[in-house]
This record gives sequence, structure tokens and C-alpha cells, in this order.
Amino acid sequence: MPVVTEYIHLSTNGHAQVVDVTPDVTQTLNNLDIMSGIVTVSVIGSTAALTTCEYEPGLVEDISDIFDKLIPQANYHHDQTWHDGNGHSHLRSSLVGPSVTIPFSKQKLILGTWQQIIFIDFDNRARDRKIVLQFIGE
Amino acid sequence: MPVVTEYIHLSTNGHAQVVDVTPDVTQTLNNLDIMSGIVTVSVIGSTAALTTCEYEPGLVEDISDIFDKLIPQANYHHDQTWHDGNGHSHLRSSLVGPSVTIPFSKQKLILGTWQQIIFIDFDNRARDRKIVLQFIGE
Amino acid sequence: MPVVTEYIHLSTNGHAQVVDVTPDVTQTLNNLDIMSGIVTVSVIGSTAALTTCEYEPGLVEDISDIFDKLIPQANYHHDQTWHDGNGHSHLRSSLVGPSVTIPFSKQKLILGTWQQIIFIDFDNRARDRKIVLQFIGE
Repeated sequence: MPVVTEYIHLSTNGHAQVVDVTPDVTQTLNNLDIMSGIVTVSVIGSTAALTTCEYEPGLVEDISDIFDKLIPQANYHHDQTWHDGNGHSHLRSSLVGPSVTIPFSKQKLILGTWQQIIFIDFDNRARDRKIVLQFIGE
Repeated sequence: MPVVTEYIHLSTNGHAQVVDVTPDVTQTLNNLDIMSGIVTVSVIGSTAALTTCEYEPGLVEDISDIFDKLIPQANYHHDQTWHDGNGHSHLRSSLVGPSVTIPFSKQKLILGTWQQIIFIDFDNRARDRKIVLQFIGE
Repeated sequence: MPVVTEYIHLSTNGHAQVVDVTPDVTQTLNNLDIMSGIVTVSVIGSTAALTTCEYEPGLVEDISDIFDKLIPQANYHHDQTWHDGNGHSHLRSSLVGPSVTIPFSKQKLILGTWQQIIFIDFDNRARDRKIVLQFIGE
């Protein structure tokens, strides 16, 4: 059973920007010789997160709003360490989590029709991001 | 090392109903020829989530209450897209996450005595659900 | 492809104590004969959680503060079942999640420089903890 490590590179503006990475994961899977297994989609860095949602403009706006409410931009102790004002970015990312694991079968991701794999960049500035796709299967 | 894909089918009333799926996962594992590995329990759809908790009636009520407080039913932008009033269901599901990965050894899930795998249906109506169990191991 | 099950044992004071388990996971991986794959780091028990963050004292304090705000210690229905006053510990743990899955390649965890695997003990008392490291790879 093979393990295959692939990467996605993307640029974001931060500030809870939501990116649908499903097309990238699907295309990468299609180019592999693995039919069935799991893919762990994991961000390198501590101010962004992975989960799933229905990717549509209204919900993307709601995601930004709800995190502004739950974990607002404010003066956190973290900012006393680095003075970069992104304490809220770290806290949001730890809460959502750095990776999501999705099963696949017959070389297709097992997701709902209105369920996409999303990358949320919670940092407070533009970032170039590297996301790992770790495929394990047979 | 085999990969085995199984499914659980269940019906819920939505509204943060919590279902203990541990018996289903355990029984499925017992029927397989895999002794050691991981199982990714993953919902198909974007208005439900998987995690673990101590499954007892008090905590089940607390889970419903805390999400009413954190992400209340309200008028979200998502509702302007579909008019189905379940924006909060989506947001809660993305926050908790669509899947949970549990290790097993000697054909037994490695969980605490008071730790169950729970499915939370956050939708605002009754749903028939399909949950994937992706076993990988040896 | 082998599956290897290892354990970390640690003692905490609870109350959202954050422990950086990255050195333990790294050292365990270095002693194995697996070069590439994933490790699922999973707590046994329902009052603690795993995620990643930048492990520095300011953020550790922020994590404690934000959970006091989001899910405060209070009188939950769970406390009517066990009378141990840790309803908030359970709710926080279910929200963050019991496990985190991290990819590795060339026998190195794929994490950012300022991204550590953290164990958060949300219980309201000192605990001895057992954490599973389930490695799958080749």
C-alpha cells in the first residue's frame, strides 16, 4: 500500500479568507495509482485551518462573521511576544484544527454534493501557503 | 494492508441530536479481518459533525445548549442563498468538523470507558444520514 | 506497510493546561522503521483534546482565557449526573476534538517551525493521562 505526499501552494489575503481546495485534492487523486484510502489535508503553519463546508458566498461571509464574534481581533497575550497582532488568528486555527481527513473510494473523495474541503486563512495579512496532501491507501 | 469502506445509515430529528455510533463502529470492526489501524468516521453532508464525548443524557443536553449560545439560530447570509434557515447548522458543523479518526489495536477501538464516538446532526429538520467508516490497517 | 501503536504518559494539573507533545512524537517516530505516513495522536478520555498551535507562553495563556469565555465553568446538566463540576471540560474537549492527524515524510513530521502538537487537559483537577500515537506508513 503506497503513501504519496503531494503539496498545494496558494496565496491568500488572510482575514478568514476561505479557499475551496476540493478541485486540487480531486485532481491530485486522479493522477495517482491509489483507488481507496484516506487523504489527510494539513496546513503547514499555525494561523490557518482545514474543515469542510458548503462553499457558497453567503456561508463564506458567515464564517468570517462568526469568528469575529467568537474570537474577536483584540489584544491577546500572544501579541506581547511577537507584536504582530494575530493572536486571534492562532486561537481560531487551534479551535478549528490544522488538518482534515477525508476517505476516498474508487478514486473519488467521499463527500456530499454540497460539501467542499475548505482552507481558512485566519492570519491578519497576505500569506503564501503550503498545504500537504498525504494519501494512504491501495 | 487492507482498506475497508463501510457505511452506517441512520435517521435523526436534527436540531443538534446526538447519536452514539460507537456500537456500530465496534460491531463493524469485529466483522473485519483487520487487527490494528485507524478508522476515519466521516459524515457525507455539511450540516452534521463527528467528535467524541461521554454519552450521557445531561451532557447531550449541554451540547445542544452550548451551540445555541455559541452559534445561535439567526438570520445568516447563507439563508439568503437557499432560504432553508439552517445557516447555523452549517457553521456549527464546520467548527466541530466532518470526521474523527480513532486508533484501534487487537481489534478494539482505543477509547476511554466514558468516551464514545458521537454523531451530531445540526440540521434544522429530520434527515436520513450516511456515515462512512474507512478502516485502514493490518 | 506497518502499523505501530505507541503511548505517551503524562501528568497534568488540568484547568486547560497545555502540553507540547511534539518532542515525544518526534522521538518516537525516530525510533521506528517508518519513513512516510501519518500519525494519529489521540487522547484516551473525554476531558482533554489535541490540536496544534505555536507553543509560546502568551498563547498558552490566551488559550485558557478564550475557553473561559466561550465555555465557562458553570452549572451544566452533566454535573447533575456525576457532581464532579467538569461539564465545561467535556464540552470544550468535544469542540476541539480528541485527536489530531499529522503527516510525516522522510521520518520527519510535516509541521511549521512555529507549529507544535499540543495536548490540552480541560479537566478541573490533576490527571494522569495516556495518549495513543498510531503510526501508519511505509
